[in-house]
Amino acid sequence: MGLEGLMRPRSIALVGASEKKGFGYWTAYNLLQSKDQLRIYFIHPTRERVLGQPCYRSISQLPEVVDCVILATRRDTVPALLEEAGEKGVGSAMVYASGFAEEYTELGRALEEQVKDIAARYGMNVLGPNCMGMINNVDRINTLGLETAKDCFQRKPYVGVVAQSGALANIFMKRAGYPVGYQITAGNSAVLAVEDFLEYMVEDETIRVIAMYLEGIKKPEVFYRALKKAALARKPIVALKVGRSALGAASASSHTGNLAGSHRAFEAVFEKYGVLQADTMEQLLSLSQALAAIHGNLPHGSGLASCNLSGGANILSADCAEQYGLELPRLQPETLAALARYIPSYATPANPLDATTDLFGQTDRIVGVLKALDADPGVGAITITQDIAAQATEIVRGMVEAVVESRGRGVRKPVFFNCITEMDRSLEVRALLEENGVGLLPSMPEAYQCLRSLMDYAVYDPAGHELETPPAPALGEGSTALSESESKRVLRSCGVPVPRERLAVDEDDLAGIDIPFPWAMKIQSPDILHKTDLGCVRLKVPDLELARTAFREILANARAGMPGARIEGVVVQEMAKPGLEFIVGVSNDPQLGPMVLAGMGGVFTELFQDAAMLPAPVNREEALSMLRSLKAWKLLQGYRGGAAADVTALAESIVNISRYAHENRDSLREMDVNPIFVYPEGEGVCAADALIVRTV
Amino acid sequence: MGLEGLMRPRSIALVGASEKKGFGYWTAYNLLQSKDQLRIYFIHPTRERVLGQPCYRSISQLPEVVDCVILATRRDTVPALLEEAGEKGVGSAMVYASGFAEEYTELGRALEEQVKDIAARYGMNVLGPNCMGMINNVDRINTLGLETAKDCFQRKPYVGVVAQSGALANIFMKRAGYPVGYQITAGNSAVLAVEDFLEYMVEDETIRVIAMYLEGIKKPEVFYRALKKAALARKPIVALKVGRSALGAASASSHTGNLAGSHRAFEAVFEKYGVLQADTMEQLLSLSQALAAIHGNLPHGSGLASCNLSGGANILSADCAEQYGLELPRLQPETLAALARYIPSYATPANPLDATTDLFGQTDRIVGVLKALDADPGVGAITITQDIAAQATEIVRGMVEAVVESRGRGVRKPVFFNCITEMDRSLEVRALLEENGVGLLPSMPEAYQCLRSLMDYAVYDPAGHELETPPAPALGEGSTALSESESKRVLRSCGVPVPRERLAVDEDDLAGIDIPFPWAMKIQSPDILHKTDLGCVRLKVPDLELARTAFREILANARAGMPGARIEGVVVQEMAKPGLEFIVGVSNDPQLGPMVLAGMGGVFTELFQDAAMLPAPVNREEALSMLRSLKAWKLLQGYRGGAAADVTALAESIVNISRYAHENRDSLREMDVNPIFVYPEGEGVCAADALIVRTV
Repeated sequence: MGLEGLMRPRSIALVGASEKKGFGYWTAYNLLQSKDQLRIYFIHPTRERVLGQPCYRSISQLPEVVDCVILATRRDTVPALLEEAGEKGVGSAMVYASGFAEEYTELGRALEEQVKDIAARYGMNVLGPNCMGMINNVDRINTLGLETAKDCFQRKPYVGVVAQSGALANIFMKRAGYPVGYQITAGNSAVLAVEDFLEYMVEDETIRVIAMYLEGIKKPEVFYRALKKAALARKPIVALKVGRSALGAASASSHTGNLAGSHRAFEAVFEKYGVLQADTMEQLLSLSQALAAIHGNLPHGSGLASCNLSGGANILSADCAEQYGLELPRLQPETLAALARYIPSYATPANPLDATTDLFGQTDRIVGVLKALDADPGVGAITITQDIAAQATEIVRGMVEAVVESRGRGVRKPVFFNCITEMDRSLEVRALLEENGVGLLPSMPEAYQCLRSLMDYAVYDPAGHELETPPAPALGEGSTALSESESKRVLRSCGVPVPRERLAVDEDDLAGIDIPFPWAMKIQSPDILHKTDLGCVRLKVPDLELARTAFREILANARAGMPGARIEGVVVQEMAKPGLEFIVGVSNDPQLGPMVLAGMGGVFTELFQDAAMLPAPVNREEALSMLRSLKAWKLLQGYRGGAAADVTALAESIVNISRYAHENRDSLREMDVNPIFVYPEGEGVCAADALIVRTV
Repeated sequence: MGLEGLMRPRSIALVGASEKKGFGYWTAYNLLQSKDQLRIYFIHPTRERVLGQPCYRSISQLPEVVDCVILATRRDTVPALLEEAGEKGVGSAMVYASGFAEEYTELGRALEEQVKDIAARYGMNVLGPNCMGMINNVDRINTLGLETAKDCFQRKPYVGVVAQSGALANIFMKRAGYPVGYQITAGNSAVLAVEDFLEYMVEDETIRVIAMYLEGIKKPEVFYRALKKAALARKPIVALKVGRSALGAASASSHTGNLAGSHRAFEAVFEKYGVLQADTMEQLLSLSQALAAIHGNLPHGSGLASCNLSGGANILSADCAEQYGLELPRLQPETLAALARYIPSYATPANPLDATTDLFGQTDRIVGVLKALDADPGVGAITITQDIAAQATEIVRGMVEAVVESRGRGVRKPVFFNCITEMDRSLEVRALLEENGVGLLPSMPEAYQCLRSLMDYAVYDPAGHELETPPAPALGEGSTALSESESKRVLRSCGVPVPRERLAVDEDDLAGIDIPFPWAMKIQSPDILHKTDLGCVRLKVPDLELARTAFREILANARAGMPGARIEGVVVQEMAKPGLEFIVGVSNDPQLGPMVLAGMGGVFTELFQDAAMLPAPVNREEALSMLRSLKAWKLLQGYRGGAAADVTALAESIVNISRYAHENRDSLREMDVNPIFVYPEGEGVCAADALIVRTV
């Protein structure tokens, strides 16, 4: 069922049109502004006209089957009206009332189920309930139940905005000049969810960029499919995923009745699919608008040239670049020589560049500076610290004109303006810059966070990633843990090295075991997960006599520590020789599927949160990039004269574990390979302990 | 020499008044606006009048000895004019020309030396060179060499602004409504530095808050003294210290010729003296303005109540609070009950609170919500997510009026407004809120960073800190390292436990040593610092025979590895039993003096930067707070069932080491106690290795 009828209706019927300010009034008012593009019908049980527009008595009495019906009525009227629309053959609806599942009452939940049932029965596309409607600025249709910026239809239709929250979605149109293409509030997403609109907008050619405010999703497969299409089409999606804190996640679920999902898993998905991540609403707005302005002219590599007109701004830029990991490349000698021709003698050609106030109003010299930076092969993009406050001075206008002129005179790499503090902006100047492909960024440091995301996106290549579009895992309820031995057998079978081991069922079996001493000895029981805590592990056992003692003690401790546990014997293992301790783990997100995690072992992953995560499966290059993103990467490379570790073998194990996780996505709950010892280059890895938990 | 004549002059002579736009024009123009407060004299070699004001021919011909002379002339005229002013008996001067030390030329440096000499000879207070003058809005005097906001003298004179950079200082007055008390650009600080003005403003009673943009300092003793006075007087200083990156530090020194100093050391000083740290210019502006508005009504404890009018804002608030470590306390049952009376039934009383749009325009209910939050003992301050955009809507006005009314109806804790995105603000609404003690914060997340600093400041107590005001250490040029034994003797003498040890000069001494095996054996040589690398360390030596072998090998390795090294023998040490490995170190900042550092040992301090630092000396409570600030604090507390470590003993060692460092600040270059083993509670610590480097 395509969304054309909902997203680009040619005819709309509004139930609940009103002359009293509120949803009913504003929807009616906004529809009337959209009149040229639409056939509009107001429905009112008694009035002849609302806002001058004639009214029909009911949906069934309409003279045509409209594309979409809008219900701006109270919640209890919704099921009957939807039913009536369905019978009439209307293919889509928007429901504005609140008081459904988001209210956490029995009545609310029941009403939402009714909406779902009716929609399913008639194959109806429903937006909401508990939503604020939508703007389609491609076709100039506004159904919003709110007062909307007067210049709504004059905006450029470049950015597709989708959000659960109506209040936050509305910020986009409230920002003067923001190029809203679509603005959709999904509300409770009872039928259509954020990801449905995301997919629609990925495929809409008018839309240059998508800005998504996300509390959670409902249809993982649609979500993955939309992300993959966008990645392959190189259409940028900027996402602000909220609910990262425990409190935030709780608020998110009370807000829209969505499952907030695990924040870290979303971040991992975004990384894999090349989604630009915004940390704040400001970044979501600024990044999407800047991407619309540069329109595919992405940074040519990840080096940034920072151009400033005061010493103070120059220092702030250097600090920000370091803080957000932006590379300010050293400029080529020819670049420095060229710069020296345009900046005053007391200034120093460098990156960041303090071009000094001497350049105020000097068009040719500013163009010269920009051309020199543009020509440097290490420079991927240029940012200029310059506010364009509403009351733009002559100096600002001179600067802006010079930048615009530089585009005509051959500057090809993307140019951005960032400012030092929060600022209003001259709309006219903003429009001039954006028309010339110049992006406007917010104040530092948010500007530099945006640049960081842009640079990452510029170098992202979908071909380097395994982009799957799986549905949510079909996990059962219960859990069962495999024993260490079984877990290691799984690892071995998928190509991860583990120490040799034998099971001794009774003490006399020990003598026949062909593993050289010293041994590790551990209880074999499906019921005992924390073997060390119960005294059921002995390490470095040096000979047979002590092995016999250990056998007896382990069994005794197991029986004492967990009476009734099923005990299968004692596992004798080769002692893995020690190496760098790493952890490789899997956690299976109920919506997004298995995530593979890697980090340094011991207490450090936990204390320092130094772990990398990606959705399974990952390929070798992805596994290596996970390792490179760790602070512990330095240790793997050979820290302080230590030997370089076998990164290739570690990456291989991550790949293998991730493939296993992907293939077993419907039964694997979690997996913990801890520690996996990493040996010097060429000597491989060894999984010294492992735990696999499956659903039953 | 007091700064009254410079800061609050009654008479000023301007050399270089001009009718051509530039420094000379704007200074003249701005002085004429200040006319009512001042006797003004323009000096011009030929013209009778400039801007209608009669001119004198020279400083010496002035009819009175003015308080201050301003030189808005080229650099080469400066020495002679200063000399003339000095002879006339003028006590202070401002020098605007650039091209002095900041230019890194011989001529520039020589000219700056001349300025210093003349100032010293006449005891003259000089601002600059390479500065933009100052605004004293307490007395309504403006000497700025720049166009200034027309409402300059209408601003409330609450914030003392001081900066090296003229361009950045100017941002304060450019921000509409910002309450500039003083705005001083120190430029090259040849004579008077940022810290001199800081001290002056700490003592000026009109000034409520000081905002300082700092690249570096020149007079550590004045700096410390000013910070201490401010701490004791509870006058807030908000500081933005730039130059934290290597590039930034390089830019900082090229900008004003200041020594940028070690950024970390400045942060440590700020922490100890309770200076509010801003990370960005926006925070510097917003925090100082908000502090001026709340004027001493600091948060009552560190719990924040977050009040929002949409679900989206509520989630963003929860996420931001977690990100910046702000506590959103659980509310008392009575508070929840009270809130429930004012918010709609479908909303949930909680913190953060989504009061919903239902409260728009409902003054009594908003006041009720605020009173309920104010009464909760866990709440220290309240922040409301609400923009007050320039075109403030009725909804905004309703909200603002309710908040203002709440002050009259008993809400006593500080209230702030934060917004979601960058925004212009209605000046009129801003003024109304600020007059009522309500602080306005920038967009999230910067708002929450500001709140974090405010909460820290609210609970800061100067009585808990050892606040010294030392001059810069008088360190010599060269360095000499003490041997491990000597270093440990120092540690023992200041009360830090070290393992027992004896020196064996020849092999036969070993037999007489009364330390039980196993031993650690190490070369004793003032020349060999990296003993392990040369094979000059043997650990766990089990008996005398192996000790003899070890002795011979250590000597042989030392001779082979560093021929000519002075060798005093082999030190035999008790093997310190292993514990948690920590590092305690000292680095002596050339300006700010010895900083004591503590962190976890091994490679982790370096990889994860998990170290705490404070200026020496520190007291017990400061040492404990250092440890508590570490991520490794969890390990010290007994992680995953481990024993709690002897934190008291570790803190005691930090205190003792810091006292030693303070007392030896003129000779100690650095100190590295690594590792210091920390044992379970009650069992103390032991410094297993130590290195002290002194100047010669």
